[in-house]
Amino acid sequence: MIYGYDPRTGEPVGGGLCETGGGGVGVIVDAAVAAGEGWRATAAAGRAVVLEAVADALVGRVDELWRVADRETALGEVRLRGEVARAAGQFRLFAQVIRDGGYLGAVVDHADSSAMPPRPDVRRMRHPLAGVVAVFAASNFPFAFSVAGGDTASALAAGCPVVVKAHPAHPNTSECVARVVREVLPCAELLGLVHGVGAGVELVRHRGVVAVGFTGSVAGGRAIRALIEEREVPIPFFGELGSVNPVVVLPSAARAEVAAGFAASLTLGVGQFCTNPGLVFVPDDDELREALAAAVERTTGGPMLAERIRDGYLGGLERLGRLGRLAVLAEGESGEGAWAVAPRVFAADLETFADGLPGIAEECFGPAALVVTYRDVGDLPPAVLAEGRAGQGAWAVTPRVFAADLETFADGLPGIAEECFGPAALVVTYRDVGDLPPVLERLEGSLTATVHGADPGEAGEVVRVLGGKAGRLVWNGWPTGVAVCWAMHHGGPWPASTAPAHTSVGATAIDRWLAPRAYQDWPAELLPDELKDGNPLGIPRRVDGVLTIS
Amino acid sequence: MIYGYDPRTGEPVGGGLCETGGGGVGVIVDAAVAAGEGWRATAAAGRAVVLEAVADALVGRVDELWRVADRETALGEVRLRGEVARAAGQFRLFAQVIRDGGYLGAVVDHADSSAMPPRPDVRRMRHPLAGVVAVFAASNFPFAFSVAGGDTASALAAGCPVVVKAHPAHPNTSECVARVVREVLPCAELLGLVHGVGAGVELVRHRGVVAVGFTGSVAGGRAIRALIEEREVPIPFFGELGSVNPVVVLPSAARAEVAAGFAASLTLGVGQFCTNPGLVFVPDDDELREALAAAVERTTGGPMLAERIRDGYLGGLERLGRLGRLAVLAEGESGEGAWAVAPRVFAADLETFADGLPGIAEECFGPAALVVTYRDVGDLPPAVLAEGRAGQGAWAVTPRVFAADLETFADGLPGIAEECFGPAALVVTYRDVGDLPPVLERLEGSLTATVHGADPGEAGEVVRVLGGKAGRLVWNGWPTGVAVCWAMHHGGPWPASTAPAHTSVGATAIDRWLAPRAYQDWPAELLPDELKDGNPLGIPRRVDGVLTIS
Repeated sequence: MIYGYDPRTGEPVGGGLCETGGGGVGVIVDAAVAAGEGWRATAAAGRAVVLEAVADALVGRVDELWRVADRETALGEVRLRGEVARAAGQFRLFAQVIRDGGYLGAVVDHADSSAMPPRPDVRRMRHPLAGVVAVFAASNFPFAFSVAGGDTASALAAGCPVVVKAHPAHPNTSECVARVVREVLPCAELLGLVHGVGAGVELVRHRGVVAVGFTGSVAGGRAIRALIEEREVPIPFFGELGSVNPVVVLPSAARAEVAAGFAASLTLGVGQFCTNPGLVFVPDDDELREALAAAVERTTGGPMLAERIRDGYLGGLERLGRLGRLAVLAEGESGEGAWAVAPRVFAADLETFADGLPGIAEECFGPAALVVTYRDVGDLPPAVLAEGRAGQGAWAVTPRVFAADLETFADGLPGIAEECFGPAALVVTYRDVGDLPPVLERLEGSLTATVHGADPGEAGEVVRVLGGKAGRLVWNGWPTGVAVCWAMHHGGPWPASTAPAHTSVGATAIDRWLAPRAYQDWPAELLPDELKDGNPLGIPRRVDGVLTIS
Repeated sequence: MIYGYDPRTGEPVGGGLCETGGGGVGVIVDAAVAAGEGWRATAAAGRAVVLEAVADALVGRVDELWRVADRETALGEVRLRGEVARAAGQFRLFAQVIRDGGYLGAVVDHADSSAMPPRPDVRRMRHPLAGVVAVFAASNFPFAFSVAGGDTASALAAGCPVVVKAHPAHPNTSECVARVVREVLPCAELLGLVHGVGAGVELVRHRGVVAVGFTGSVAGGRAIRALIEEREVPIPFFGELGSVNPVVVLPSAARAEVAAGFAASLTLGVGQFCTNPGLVFVPDDDELREALAAAVERTTGGPMLAERIRDGYLGGLERLGRLGRLAVLAEGESGEGAWAVAPRVFAADLETFADGLPGIAEECFGPAALVVTYRDVGDLPPAVLAEGRAGQGAWAVTPRVFAADLETFADGLPGIAEECFGPAALVVTYRDVGDLPPVLERLEGSLTATVHGADPGEAGEVVRVLGGKAGRLVWNGWPTGVAVCWAMHHGGPWPASTAPAHTSVGATAIDRWLAPRAYQDWPAELLPDELKDGNPLGIPRRVDGVLTIS
């Protein structure tokens, strides 16, 4: 049985749900495949109406939805109402996208008998993949990256049925959302839902599944990748695996705003964001360092989404403590609740980092950050700079910031630059902006990279190097908060994602579930309307090499 | 040492070339990575000029190029001159594509402070992958799918340096083409060339390689896929693996044209095309069957590209002979040359196909086809329907067509529908068009699917089913001959390709080497020109949700 748990008390919520087993996954996928035939054949205009009905249904049931989710996630009313609105907004955006028709990449090349060799009439557009999209829901967004999240919205928009592997951190929310969505789908089987690890494995192996979307850890992403590699027929895997999201603070940056913004971004949602700023490079400046520490000390943690996630974070912090030269610099108040933890600040000697801090930032999902400070010739000990207050609740954890210096990274960044899921970050001070590029070059791929500064001219090579490391570059902002819009790209080089050409947020997320087909000398009456002469649907098309807007 | 061989004589051509070993691959890739920095930073307009210079250089040196290639491939002057023109045309097309700028997918979403939550300014465009594109050249197109083929042209156009693993069937041509191209590149290291199987393995494993393009067999594709799966950092793999390319002849089709067209398409280039029509469904009609046989009997084979390829094809035919009930129905004249073979026609009993013809069409690269005929309740023996004349030359082979009936496929298509590289095909007769869809449903993915008929209304479900099986649908034409144009899609579901969303021919082939990046609240002076306000480059962009053409 699968139970949801209340992160504030650690107690089970409601009755248990059965794991999907005994052929159940196959039945659900087969039903989705069958339902998908009619859905794929439904005109975009018809699919758009359904997507908007889903959005309306989510918003209409928000009073019920946020309460169910809050009991399982402790994310609170404001955040959860906002997230339902965001999930609904995603369905509305994809309704716009498919009405617009540009996503089809329609191209018409008329025959050219004067070409050598003579060219036939060739027309091309994208079609939905013929089968089921499997979606592995994330823990940290029970609405916007779960059963009715962006993967599901974009796949349904493309014309694909979806089977979601529910995240165990919110099984009842998953069931509730699926019921709400199914009520307005033309066919309930278009959205399947399965529970349990075994069901997830069976799902990836099922031959009716033609693509997999996943949001989660690198370890989880590797596991699914391995399952896909075992398949007889390979399928695309779109895994968004999170990242450290490096931030560079230029000397010209507004310091007070940086300190406050960093603390807020770091601790948003108890740091449980894939865009959490985990690695911050700051100028060597006592005032800024103290401001960062003070800002983080004023923050409050909170209960994490699941006991396993809280334990992972605490385990990560414990490993940091065991690294030898880390000492407690400051300690805040403990929050209330069975599993609440207290804010704390560590300090350590520089030598701690001789071998690059292996393990210091691994699997430490929770409100901790690592600030690695630099003063002069290695005389400042790396330190846990500041720690906030733990919030209340069974799985509450404390924001934490570590410190080290730039020279720590002379021999690379083993372990240090790996994501620590939760409000953990590493702040590295530097003396000269010109010293940064070689260190930044060594970073792995990230979802985002951020620069703070008043003078863009100051950035120099930093911008070029960060450009190759991240899918989204942010100026004078913080990476948490991913706008759902046409231009958004939420992806990046491995390990941020398994498919750097694709995004899981924004209009182009639909691209993942489409593949083109070309029609050569095809009879007009058999052509899709999108490719007929006269452009009856009025969509953007490239005709004989020229982009045309009807 | 690696030698080129003359397919007409089987003798080595010129001196041997060294396999790239002893760290050579690393040196070449590292040099390409370094050269790539400047190339990536070159404006599209500048890259376009270089692409056109490459096209001019290829055309200017065609007299030298076709001769070198003919000695190693025996493809003949007309075909090879045409292929050089095609390769040059690909470079010119990609110059057009990058001047147009639409390929960048530029999107500008201005900030919207009235949105909830307020939306930042977000702009997005595609950038070249930051590293080397590894290209595995094909055997059958020494120009258009080799060193200066579509993969190389599209990758250079995107802004990526390229290292090509030369195909052993034309090593001297590869060297010659690389010299010609390098003379006009701003930096010779932008196009690396390596020889030998070990070099190919090293290339795929090199960390400087960010994507792999491959054209070849399913076995070769699987081998590269396995190497990529071993990599610490996964990279995209675009393998175009060929296919059986099913053809459905509707009862209304013009029979004489079908017979002549089939024979010509089947034997073009001694059947050595990934678009070779390998599986033909025809109405149950003696006249058509005889016309197909007669047309194929009038064809002439020719020397294959390599001894290994010829042996593979002959081995495949031998296996067919060993299946028991296959008998020789007719035999044509043998061509001249040490390895020439004679045209031949087989016949067999229906029972041969009880288990689905396992192996009958595996690895039989050469001018053979399988026509599986149907008359009534299984009374017509599957037969090798017709065989053409072998051409002259050491590695000459014979076109061949096998026959069987539709009921053979009642229990699936094990082995029967696998590609037999070369002019081999399977012709299946049917009584009713309505009997076809369940059989077509069982086919694996193909690059193309073709329908012949005078009445599109006759096709019914056939078109819907074929649509899900192929990347290109052809009406009243033959799949060989892939037009290089904006609308072309040369790809398809596995095993036709490893990445069904992508093409290796046509304007969108450039998409493979690009990944998007979003810029959030990014300073105007640091934005790429493509995303600046006022659209200084005049490229197509989507601005606040609306597609705009400057």
